[in-house]
Amino acid sequence: MLTHVHHINLLVRDLDSAISQYGALGVTEFLRGNLQGRGVKTVRFRAGETWIVLIEPTDPEGVPGQYLAKHGEGLFLLSFGVDDVTAARDIVQENGSQVLNTSPRTGLEGWQVIDLDPDAFSGADLQLTEDPARSPEER
Amino acid sequence: MLTHVHHINLLVRDLDSAISQYGALGVTEFLRGNLQGRGVKTVRFRAGETWIVLIEPTDPEGVPGQYLAKHGEGLFLLSFGVDDVTAARDIVQENGSQVLNTSPRTGLEGWQVIDLDPDAFSGADLQLTEDPARSPEER
Repeated sequence: MLTHVHHINLLVRDLDSAISQYGALGVTEFLRGNLQGRGVKTVRFRAGETWIVLIEPTDPEGVPGQYLAKHGEGLFLLSFGVDDVTAARDIVQENGSQVLNTSPRTGLEGWQVIDLDPDAFSGADLQLTEDPARSPEER
Repeated sequence: MLTHVHHINLLVRDLDSAISQYGALGVTEFLRGNLQGRGVKTVRFRAGETWIVLIEPTDPEGVPGQYLAKHGEGLFLLSFGVDDVTAARDIVQENGSQVLNTSPRTGLEGWQVIDLDPDAFSGADLQLTEDPARSPEER
């Protein structure tokens, strides 16, 4: 069911500083994107088949903003790729685990996201993502 | 320089519970491994080209054990794959960023690991890993 690690979110206080820092790892291509509904601005880059998403909260009351205030900068969230996010949600629920949103919410680039309940996964902040840009050949 | 996300470490209090939990995501193949030098026992599974490594500290004084006591369960560390970890370390240092160990340390399965200084990467716990099992065709 899990095809790959679709994206990993890292919270940062300042995106421009982070871009400079990740440049030290040889990263040269950064893409910007905002998600007003989550109260964040983002910069992402590729590492193989995975998006690394750097997130600067712009709304301290949003979920990412609250997480930054409580936990500080660093790893925030791990999102697994799936081919069909509603089918995957059904399997998770049939297996007795909880999700935080039963209807997928829309992330960057139209990603369809279901958040898993951290209490059902040893405290880890996990997601399932269906990426409409992923071609059938990759599935 | 970063070929992919080689592995992601998640801290858990109890590996057997975690195995049961990740089974709800359809994961069926788990591999066990201990790293006595780090004071942990581990279970790992594949998600595409990435290893997801679940870590239960057995030594509260080890780095993972201390992290668990301070931060609780959840995402712990993100490790990028590189073809040559000492060459990658040199590039990072030439670019003015710091590493925590200048000589690679050996992780699971002979992985050669350089830890990056979180202060140089917006507080994120990052690593570089050269995996001797990665075939030349994958590079």
